[in-house]
Amino acid sequence: MSSEFDLIRRFFTRDTHHTALGVGDDAALLRPGAGMELAVSTDMLVAGTHFFADTDARDLGWKTLAVNVSDLAAMAAQPRWATLAMSLPTADPVWLEAFSEGFFACAGQFDIDLVGGDTTRGPLNLAVTIMGEVPRGQAVTRGGARPGDDIWISGQPGRAALGLARLRGTLTLLPGAEADCIAALQRPQPRVALGLALRGLANAMLDVSDGLVGDLGHILAASGVSAILDVQSLPLQPLLAAGVSPTQARAALLEGGDDYELLFAAPHAMRSRIRDGARAAGVDVTRIGVIEPAGGHALRLREADGGLTLPGTLGYDHFRDAPTGAG
Amino acid sequence: MSSEFDLIRRFFTRDTHHTALGVGDDAALLRPGAGMELAVSTDMLVAGTHFFADTDARDLGWKTLAVNVSDLAAMAAQPRWATLAMSLPTADPVWLEAFSEGFFACAGQFDIDLVGGDTTRGPLNLAVTIMGEVPRGQAVTRGGARPGDDIWISGQPGRAALGLARLRGTLTLLPGAEADCIAALQRPQPRVALGLALRGLANAMLDVSDGLVGDLGHILAASGVSAILDVQSLPLQPLLAAGVSPTQARAALLEGGDDYELLFAAPHAMRSRIRDGARAAGVDVTRIGVIEPAGGHALRLREADGGLTLPGTLGYDHFRDAPTGAG
Repeated sequence: MSSEFDLIRRFFTRDTHHTALGVGDDAALLRPGAGMELAVSTDMLVAGTHFFADTDARDLGWKTLAVNVSDLAAMAAQPRWATLAMSLPTADPVWLEAFSEGFFACAGQFDIDLVGGDTTRGPLNLAVTIMGEVPRGQAVTRGGARPGDDIWISGQPGRAALGLARLRGTLTLLPGAEADCIAALQRPQPRVALGLALRGLANAMLDVSDGLVGDLGHILAASGVSAILDVQSLPLQPLLAAGVSPTQARAALLEGGDDYELLFAAPHAMRSRIRDGARAAGVDVTRIGVIEPAGGHALRLREADGGLTLPGTLGYDHFRDAPTGAG
Repeated sequence: MSSEFDLIRRFFTRDTHHTALGVGDDAALLRPGAGMELAVSTDMLVAGTHFFADTDARDLGWKTLAVNVSDLAAMAAQPRWATLAMSLPTADPVWLEAFSEGFFACAGQFDIDLVGGDTTRGPLNLAVTIMGEVPRGQAVTRGGARPGDDIWISGQPGRAALGLARLRGTLTLLPGAEADCIAALQRPQPRVALGLALRGLANAMLDVSDGLVGDLGHILAASGVSAILDVQSLPLQPLLAAGVSPTQARAALLEGGDDYELLFAAPHAMRSRIRDGARAAGVDVTRIGVIEPAGGHALRLREADGGLTLPGTLGYDHFRDAPTGAG
C-alpha cells in the first residue's frame, strides 16, 4: 500500500552528509559551522504557472531544487540542506521515482542533504526551502552596488526563453541549438562555484529568474543607484546562432527569465580577479554595463549609435500576466 | 497595481527581532547561537485536503504557522524563523490582509521572524518551513522511548475532531462546547512552553497531527518498543461534556488529528518534574499508558474490565482516504 509515509521513505530517504538528524522526525537537526551565517530561501513551483504539466518528471525534479540552489549561489553562500513539500494529484510511483532521480541528481552535484519533507494530495505544487552557509558578513546582497561598478552577467542568458518559445510553438530554432535552449529551460545550472568565487569581489548580486532588466531593477532599487546597459556588449551571439532575429535575441536576453545566471556589480579594480574566478568555475562572464548615480531613469540602454533608450518592459510578474509555461 | 512584489511587501514585511537580513533578497541571513543545533521542519496546507476552502483567512493564517510551530515544540526546540510560500488563485488584498493578520498573530505570540517568502498564482496552497534552536544534543526525538516509560498527552485531544465533525454537519455539540471544539480545529495552540520544559525529562516526543493512535505508532516504531494505553486514563471527560457518546468521544480522542497536543514518553522518576513543568507552562498533562518491550502487537488498549484490545484504525493518511476538511 502506497501510504504517504511509505512513499516518502521509498523515494526521498537518502544518506545525509552533514546533518545530525534527517527526514523522519518532527524536525531535522542541523549544525551550522562556527562563525557561519545561515542563508535561507524558499521557492514554490506550480504546474501551469512555472512549468508545463507534462514536463518530464526527471527534469522537474532537477529544476525544483536547482532554482533554489541558484538563490544561495546569488548570495555567495554554500548550499547545504533542503526541505521539499509536495502536493500531488496522485501518488504515482513512476512519476515519484523519476522526480526523485532528478531532484537527487541536483542534490548530489551540489552536495545538498534533503532534511525534511511533506507529501499531500492536491494540485501539483512543489515547494523547496534551501539552507546554506556563508561566513558572517561575507554574503553578497542586492544592496551594495556603487556608481562606477561594472555590471556583469554569467553564461548565455536568453536561451531558456528561446527554449520556452520553441516548446510553445511560437518560434523555430536551428536543429543544433534547439536541444541546448530547451535544456537551459529544463535543466538550469546554478552558478554555485562562481557565486563562491565572487565573495569579496562583487558588491551586489542576484540570480536572473524573472528577466535581466526586471531583476537588475531589484539591484538598482536596493542599492539606490541607476545603470546603463551597453547593448553592444550583450552576449547576443549565442542566441543569434540559434537562428532567431536580432530583435528576438535582444528580447530573450533582456526580458527572458529562467536561465538562473548571476547578475552582479563589482568595482573596476576587480576585473581580472573576476575573470580568474569565472575561469576556475568554468563559467563565461560578460561585462554588460555600468552602475550610475541615482537619476531620473533607473535603467537606460546605450544603443549601437551611442544614443540612450529606455527598456520596454518591467520584467515578469506572476500576477501581472498568466503564463502557461515556465516563468 | 498589485504586483507580486507589492503584495508581499505590503502584507508580509514586518520588523524582525533576531535576523541579520530578512525578506527581500535572494536569501535571508540568520545567526544561530553558539552551541545550538538548528531544528527545521516543513508543512504544506492544501485547500480541500487540509482545510475547507471557505475557512476564515485569519484562522488559516494562524493555523498555517501554528502547525509548523508545533513540530518544533515536539522537538523541545525554540522556534525562531519561518518562510512562507503561497500559491493563490487570485491576489485578493482583503484575503491577504486577513491571512497575514492571523499568521503574524501566531508569529508574534511565539516571537518568530518571517524571513522569506514566495507568492505565485495557482490553486490555494500554503507551505511553511520553520527553523528554531535547541542546545546541541537536547532535542527530543521519536526514537528514545524505553520500556517502563509513562506515556503522556497534553491538553484535551479530540476536540478538533469534534469541531470538524460539527462543521461537516455529521455531529451536533452542546452550545457551550461548540465554539471551543471549532477553535481547537481552527486555532490550535502549539505547546512550545511545555516542549521546552520537557527537555531532559521526556525520552521521546511528537505532536499529534494525524491521530493519537497513529502518531504513537511512530514513536513505537522509531523506538523499537510496544505500548499499552489505559482507556480509563484517557481524558474523555471534556469530550463527553460536549454532548457526544462515549464511542464518539473515544474515536475522537484516539483517531482524531489536528489538536497538535504533545504525546511523549518519560521515565517514572520524572513524574513530579513533568507536572511542575506543565503547570508552569499552563497546560494540562495526563498519563495515559506505559511503554512495553517490543512484542507481537505494537499497541494494545487496556479496557475498563482489564482486558486488552487492539485499536481499530491505523491513523490518518493523506493518500489513503480523501478528506474534504482538516487533516
